[in-house]
Amino acid sequence: MKEELTTPESEGNKSVEKIPLLPEIDSPADLRRLTTDQLPQVCDELREFIIQSCSCNPGHFGSSMGAVELIVALHYVFNTPDDRIVWDVGHQAYAHKILTGRRDAFATQRTLGGLSGFPSPLESEYDTFMAGHAGNSISAALGMAIADRITPGHENRKTVAVIGDASISNGIAFEGLNNVSNNPNNLLIILNDNDMSIDDNVGALHQYLSDLTTSKGYNKWRHKTYQFLVKKGIISEAKKGKYIRFNNSLKSFISGGQNIFEGLNIRYFGPFDGHDVKKIVRVLDEIKDMEGPRILHLRTTKGKGFPEAEKDPASWHAPGKFDPQTGTKVRKNSENEPLPWQEVFGRTLVELAEKDDRVVGITAAMPSGTSMSNLLNEMPARAFDVGISEGHAVTFAGGLAAGGKRPFVAVYSSFLQRAYDNIIHDVAIQGLPVTFCIDRAGLVGEDGVTHHGLFDLAYLRLIPGLKIAAPADEKTLRNLMHHSLEQDGPLAIRYPRGKATTPDWKTLFGEIEEGKGVLFNGDGKAKIAVLTLGPIRQEALSAVDLWRARGEQADLYDMIWLKPLDTALLRQIAETHPYIVTVEDGTISGGFGSAVTEALREMGMTNKVKVLGAPDRWIHQGTVDQLRQQCGFGPLDIFHALKDISDTNLK
Amino acid sequence: MKEELTTPESEGNKSVEKIPLLPEIDSPADLRRLTTDQLPQVCDELREFIIQSCSCNPGHFGSSMGAVELIVALHYVFNTPDDRIVWDVGHQAYAHKILTGRRDAFATQRTLGGLSGFPSPLESEYDTFMAGHAGNSISAALGMAIADRITPGHENRKTVAVIGDASISNGIAFEGLNNVSNNPNNLLIILNDNDMSIDDNVGALHQYLSDLTTSKGYNKWRHKTYQFLVKKGIISEAKKGKYIRFNNSLKSFISGGQNIFEGLNIRYFGPFDGHDVKKIVRVLDEIKDMEGPRILHLRTTKGKGFPEAEKDPASWHAPGKFDPQTGTKVRKNSENEPLPWQEVFGRTLVELAEKDDRVVGITAAMPSGTSMSNLLNEMPARAFDVGISEGHAVTFAGGLAAGGKRPFVAVYSSFLQRAYDNIIHDVAIQGLPVTFCIDRAGLVGEDGVTHHGLFDLAYLRLIPGLKIAAPADEKTLRNLMHHSLEQDGPLAIRYPRGKATTPDWKTLFGEIEEGKGVLFNGDGKAKIAVLTLGPIRQEALSAVDLWRARGEQADLYDMIWLKPLDTALLRQIAETHPYIVTVEDGTISGGFGSAVTEALREMGMTNKVKVLGAPDRWIHQGTVDQLRQQCGFGPLDIFHALKDISDTNLK
Repeated sequence: MKEELTTPESEGNKSVEKIPLLPEIDSPADLRRLTTDQLPQVCDELREFIIQSCSCNPGHFGSSMGAVELIVALHYVFNTPDDRIVWDVGHQAYAHKILTGRRDAFATQRTLGGLSGFPSPLESEYDTFMAGHAGNSISAALGMAIADRITPGHENRKTVAVIGDASISNGIAFEGLNNVSNNPNNLLIILNDNDMSIDDNVGALHQYLSDLTTSKGYNKWRHKTYQFLVKKGIISEAKKGKYIRFNNSLKSFISGGQNIFEGLNIRYFGPFDGHDVKKIVRVLDEIKDMEGPRILHLRTTKGKGFPEAEKDPASWHAPGKFDPQTGTKVRKNSENEPLPWQEVFGRTLVELAEKDDRVVGITAAMPSGTSMSNLLNEMPARAFDVGISEGHAVTFAGGLAAGGKRPFVAVYSSFLQRAYDNIIHDVAIQGLPVTFCIDRAGLVGEDGVTHHGLFDLAYLRLIPGLKIAAPADEKTLRNLMHHSLEQDGPLAIRYPRGKATTPDWKTLFGEIEEGKGVLFNGDGKAKIAVLTLGPIRQEALSAVDLWRARGEQADLYDMIWLKPLDTALLRQIAETHPYIVTVEDGTISGGFGSAVTEALREMGMTNKVKVLGAPDRWIHQGTVDQLRQQCGFGPLDIFHALKDISDTNLK
Repeated sequence: MKEELTTPESEGNKSVEKIPLLPEIDSPADLRRLTTDQLPQVCDELREFIIQSCSCNPGHFGSSMGAVELIVALHYVFNTPDDRIVWDVGHQAYAHKILTGRRDAFATQRTLGGLSGFPSPLESEYDTFMAGHAGNSISAALGMAIADRITPGHENRKTVAVIGDASISNGIAFEGLNNVSNNPNNLLIILNDNDMSIDDNVGALHQYLSDLTTSKGYNKWRHKTYQFLVKKGIISEAKKGKYIRFNNSLKSFISGGQNIFEGLNIRYFGPFDGHDVKKIVRVLDEIKDMEGPRILHLRTTKGKGFPEAEKDPASWHAPGKFDPQTGTKVRKNSENEPLPWQEVFGRTLVELAEKDDRVVGITAAMPSGTSMSNLLNEMPARAFDVGISEGHAVTFAGGLAAGGKRPFVAVYSSFLQRAYDNIIHDVAIQGLPVTFCIDRAGLVGEDGVTHHGLFDLAYLRLIPGLKIAAPADEKTLRNLMHHSLEQDGPLAIRYPRGKATTPDWKTLFGEIEEGKGVLFNGDGKAKIAVLTLGPIRQEALSAVDLWRARGEQADLYDMIWLKPLDTALLRQIAETHPYIVTVEDGTISGGFGSAVTEALREMGMTNKVKVLGAPDRWIHQGTVDQLRQQCGFGPLDIFHALKDISDTNLK
């Protein structure tokens, strides 16, 4: 059967040409009506669908190509949606979306009002839990499995957690694993091991997983030693459980590792080829009704079925548009374009590290994403990729700072939420000089609700002793980073996803005064002051320009620092401007506008203040511009706020 | 030598009476001048010192009694403070404080202006990193060890992380372990395994550690199998490394577990008796100069040396005052006293669980502390202690809620910081009906800076869709818990440490309207309105009474809900009261007062507002009343705020 699949065109034999199966699969129930021999064809068609779709509508290509057989097998063996699959991160789950009634809507993925790029319970009953942040699937699925166990009539529902080899190194995944055998349940965990996170995987667990699958001579050893132990009467065929465990123990010894999962009282099966769909179906059929928690280890290849992606999985994680035939990526000409913010950060960090021996860099599994790769390449002994371990990244930075270093921690804003207590307890209370370079701050666009970095200003502002700044241009970013070497205590610098402002980013380092904002545009004599923090200054400037085109005036202040807030400047602004509009790329609940309001209250000022930013509701996917407009802080919204605040007052 | 120690009094022989050693030890350097034969005496004197001190000045007794030999051995073998010991949680480190120049100051521990109850770098150079929240020591120590490794001249400094068997199950500890072998370092990890957290330990890792030390026949097996493998030419004496690993592998097999640490590429030694100080010194001497990361597993007994504490370690974790001779605890008569808040929660939860099958409870290693023990005892299948795994606790609750249950998660406020992303990503985005019962919210008193729950209102307020309430009395707490069963989405209920308000706590469940505050005291016609949230209402009432005694008037409003905030009531208040004072047991930066200020801004109201609460700086230990005063929200402070706000206005 499988041979046939690759030959019809070359043989030109019409009689073996396949009738497409995918167009008839509107739900997993349709899939389950097929024979197992038809499944490889379904997998091929899913791959082709994903290639065609992602080539023009960019997405997470590599992971999804690698999980096709796994997804087909799961929906084939389990009675979804009554049985439940819990995805981890979820960017591998495209085939799952396509098989669960969203084939036609798939083209709307990651767009405004369309499908989410990640599984989302708000979207489909087949998406059983929110995915996006790594490592939560075991804990969530365990909750479901135990809920069924204690619900009369639900005892036979099955729950499957799928987790990648990178995700499983996260602390929450370990906490989940450690609790799996604590209460009776039949949870099945599938370890989708593609030997990769977005970039190379790191950590001892990764090494362990590699060892587990590459050890030689295992079967020979096992047989020999087993026979010896039987002969000595130490074990018997009857003690099957012991024997299975012994296999693992021996395997561990030979591989130089240990079976961690068995150590945590979770039965371990594998590793098996994660691209042999019929084999996965057989294995799942065998273990699905077993009692107690189990882990099934599948080896998969990121980008499977698309040779270019298999060769270079990191760059094909989210490749953008590409030619589905040749694999040539569609690249815009980037001559004379500004660099992305993160690249300015990454290159500046190398410059600082060259000047100052104390500089070290830390990222949590995002070296390319954050451009920490620059320092990793240039000074590997002073740059650390700790894997998907945000909490450890921050506490480790605290230890480095306690050891006299000047650590720069580059983490995406929404992932930094996972290190909240570490920032408070392991850095801020001690006043350690850790610099947090908060990437993807504000709206991130297509990745949607789980990935926006809208909360950082508000959740960091309340931490005593933590300084917080947001540069609106490259020069300020560089000066802030430079400044961080000379100041005491922790400092957070936030910047968004995407391009910065100018191709001439490489300015000389200059001084920057802590807690000082500036009048950026205007003469300071208008009645309205617009106060911004970060690159949203540009949108505010457009609004002010529009406003001036109406013959009105407004002064634009770039506050730069959220904390310490420039209260001297604010007092001066408040005394001379009856109307104040604040704009931030973050939540208005407790954020920059809130800090301005608090400060005015303390001064006893009663200016009319309008705060623009993300509202107190969940924001989903779309382009950044679309979402800004939806949130009410695009240029036109700011313009209207200027209009409203002065109109209101005229009444 | 050891026999002598127990006999001098009974024999009445003056010549063998010991000259006390402890009074002469002002630093670890003094300790290191003793012979190893003198160390058991030092341990005995330390124990006696701790017993005498804790009997009248309550503290964390059990853990500290169990770690005496470990601490003496560490300071004896390592060249502290140049070599660094990093404590985890740190309530086991009393002997460390006593040996490092704080013997005389020890009596001030946990009091205002005195020593912290936990190691603190703000207090001593021997306290290398902040401790208080479990699991951070490995990550922090790894940072220090790697900082030394890349700092010329520091290559020989040594770093030791000490972690308990309960702490090591935390996700951050696992992230640390997983990264330990990632970069060259010589970190030594000491696993202080006392088979207990505050309450019984849970989780597979705990079972694993027990198995590791209780397996029988291990040595016999090892020898037999080793001989066999040598004979077959499979291993040789030369391959020592392999042999050591093989020992562990075999041990794992026999114990029914696996050696997880070796699996993570960390050399494992142990388990050894953690109360044989001379043996620990010998072992530490042997392994201290080894290259690469190592873990030393010591078995200790919580409360060691005080029989009552050894017998009942949970109640002797922090026993309060006691008789040092008899071990009789000094208990106040609690007849007709109010129950603690947590006990009202715990008993109410059982009532609700009896009424509603969907109710389940989750705690993270604090069943007695949170009184989740009530449900664990009454309905063990529906109550879950997940160990020190706050992130898992919340995500697991999300899974239970997705499975149709109504989970109540009881976690201390400062520890909930560790589950911040889980609250956002795994509960709130999906709108799952999880009820967070936030214990120890606000100032906690003697446990100090790492344990205050001052941030929750501010960090939770910005999460869309999360409702937040703070009851001022038992009836409201019960009604809120009852209400949570009938509402959708997540709800956070916060209450402080300590006694609630009345012995007659068991009211009938009544309705409570979401987002509705009440005029609690006054006729609503005063010029000043005092707005409170939570039990701090009582202090505000005292202040209002004082104010009235001056012939003035004020109205006291209990807002109950931070979110949704009662903006209708607030508008009414603002329209009739020119002066508003808000009071909260939490940070003023972004908290309740900030929410009131934001809402008034949106209404366009310009009332004079004074916000009282914890200031934007770190608050250390003391009694709750002392700290409230220090923060400026005790009754007199509130009284003065009433005076100031009206005075200011008269000017």
